[in-house]
Amino acid sequence: MFAILIVSSFYSGDALAQPDPLPSWNDTAPKKAIIAFVEKVTREGSPDFVRPGERIATFDNDGTLWAEQPIYFQFLFAMDRIKALAPQHPEWKTEEPFKFVLTGDMKGLLASGEKGVLAMMAETHAGMTTVEFDQIVREWFKTARHPRFKRPYNEMVYQPMLELLAYLRANGFKTFIVSGGGVEFMRAFAPEAYGIPPGQIVGSMGKLKYEMRNGTPMLIKLPDVLFIDDKAGKPEGIQSFIGQRPIFAFGNSIGDQQMLEWAAGGRGARFMGLVHHDDVEREWAYGAESKIGTFSDALMAEAKENGWTVVSMKDDWKTIFPTRPNEK
Amino acid sequence: MFAILIVSSFYSGDALAQPDPLPSWNDTAPKKAIIAFVEKVTREGSPDFVRPGERIATFDNDGTLWAEQPIYFQFLFAMDRIKALAPQHPEWKTEEPFKFVLTGDMKGLLASGEKGVLAMMAETHAGMTTVEFDQIVREWFKTARHPRFKRPYNEMVYQPMLELLAYLRANGFKTFIVSGGGVEFMRAFAPEAYGIPPGQIVGSMGKLKYEMRNGTPMLIKLPDVLFIDDKAGKPEGIQSFIGQRPIFAFGNSIGDQQMLEWAAGGRGARFMGLVHHDDVEREWAYGAESKIGTFSDALMAEAKENGWTVVSMKDDWKTIFPTRPNEK
Repeated sequence: MFAILIVSSFYSGDALAQPDPLPSWNDTAPKKAIIAFVEKVTREGSPDFVRPGERIATFDNDGTLWAEQPIYFQFLFAMDRIKALAPQHPEWKTEEPFKFVLTGDMKGLLASGEKGVLAMMAETHAGMTTVEFDQIVREWFKTARHPRFKRPYNEMVYQPMLELLAYLRANGFKTFIVSGGGVEFMRAFAPEAYGIPPGQIVGSMGKLKYEMRNGTPMLIKLPDVLFIDDKAGKPEGIQSFIGQRPIFAFGNSIGDQQMLEWAAGGRGARFMGLVHHDDVEREWAYGAESKIGTFSDALMAEAKENGWTVVSMKDDWKTIFPTRPNEK
Repeated sequence: MFAILIVSSFYSGDALAQPDPLPSWNDTAPKKAIIAFVEKVTREGSPDFVRPGERIATFDNDGTLWAEQPIYFQFLFAMDRIKALAPQHPEWKTEEPFKFVLTGDMKGLLASGEKGVLAMMAETHAGMTTVEFDQIVREWFKTARHPRFKRPYNEMVYQPMLELLAYLRANGFKTFIVSGGGVEFMRAFAPEAYGIPPGQIVGSMGKLKYEMRNGTPMLIKLPDVLFIDDKAGKPEGIQSFIGQRPIFAFGNSIGDQQMLEWAAGGRGARFMGLVHHDDVEREWAYGAESKIGTFSDALMAEAKENGWTVVSMKDDWKTIFPTRPNEK
């Protein structure tokens, strides 16, 4: 009953009585823009009022909800998996792209391009049941540690974004992930990390094959791609899997451009946000020159021209990562 | 606040104080099995208790939540659409399968098979934006009437199933549609008809293409198939788009067999149900001989062997369709 009352009072608009819903955000323009937006779309009688069922918020994952350096964490998972499987594959010692993984030759690995990535994905993300894959990923989150921050990857999430997700949900929004990352990979950590249920996670996906083995039904992960949820694939994925147009969308890179345009193109009040990685001390600083999470000049110009909110991690966030249990 | 209290008292297990949650169901075995299942999985401390976030219920649509005779309603929509578009396509007068539609030759139309269906779908379900398609379908629901029952197709839903959906939701279940029907077609009526939000509707889908036209983003429906959500496609779609295994699944035909097997194969308490169309007076009676919604002998045998609940429309349902506003 306590939780219900809290939610009700959020709805009542009695802001004075509320604790700060975004304590890890500085009192700069982005926080003010977020709160102003949420208040106007939730205030009944407001010309900008949006019914709760239409309060759809979509978030990119890599670089928006969690970090993505030195490279996408799913890619690091795939590399670790290649290493773990190498004893069963002596041929990988001389075969591209696997030999690059085994010798730690990142330059060679990245140069192997899309073909190399697809070969890695086929070996590490297919040929097993969905249940087996889920267990492998969960085990990786338990054991793998980020090279710089020495914490599990599922703790490389952004504290200010956790608060934003909770704030939106407390105000009747439905929060979704819309990411280029693999949907089965994300579902192994994202529901717990972000409070977003599996069915509200949209991502890239491979084909599955239903099979009955000795009377037990199972789903096998195939190496074929069903859907790539990136760039133009993001609005396409939103329509196919969510079926509603977001009124609130957050990204950080050119992979999110079309999702933000799609959100912006709807009628009524809209909020579009971009996380800018400009904090070399506490996280990373990277932009157009980066191979990952490219924040291009053109995207920055589009954001400015259209009044999208650009969040400076350096200036607008008090904290980057959540406090770890043993750091308290 | 009133609604919240009702939900709370459902959770409290104080069954005596409750009105009948399934008034359109006779007090026969299926109703008892449903209520017994819901009570045991929602009772805290019960060995069968299931956390609310894992109470996933999936429903087939055609023949399970609404009728499907004389043929799938989406097919009737496509036929009406061909007729409406015919003046712009004089060549259809002599072209298969269109000429069959225009002359009302159902036998010829059905004989044109998958090729004919795909040609009809390409003309009626593609080549327009998602917004335009949604408007066309909504308009059809407003104007088209079922030949036998003379009511709009979105009122050809089963009253007992509406009650079941509401009962499950009141008990913390998340209800999903998992149908071979087109997802964009269903989303034009199902959220209102069943109280199921667009993102909880899984169906067959065509590919979409994001385009920016004169500065306005739009999604174009392409004639290519992305995913067919039928038979083995149902558990595959459940995993890809919901990401959780249902503990409760309802279907009516061999198209639902794999979904029911997939639900049945999970650990813990499970409920599998089949609607049997055996009511020639109030609805239809059909089975293995039907081209639509085939209820095969093998499926019936599998249901019996595994303790799945078979609902006789004739014996187990008091009412079939909801009372229309003007019939009150």
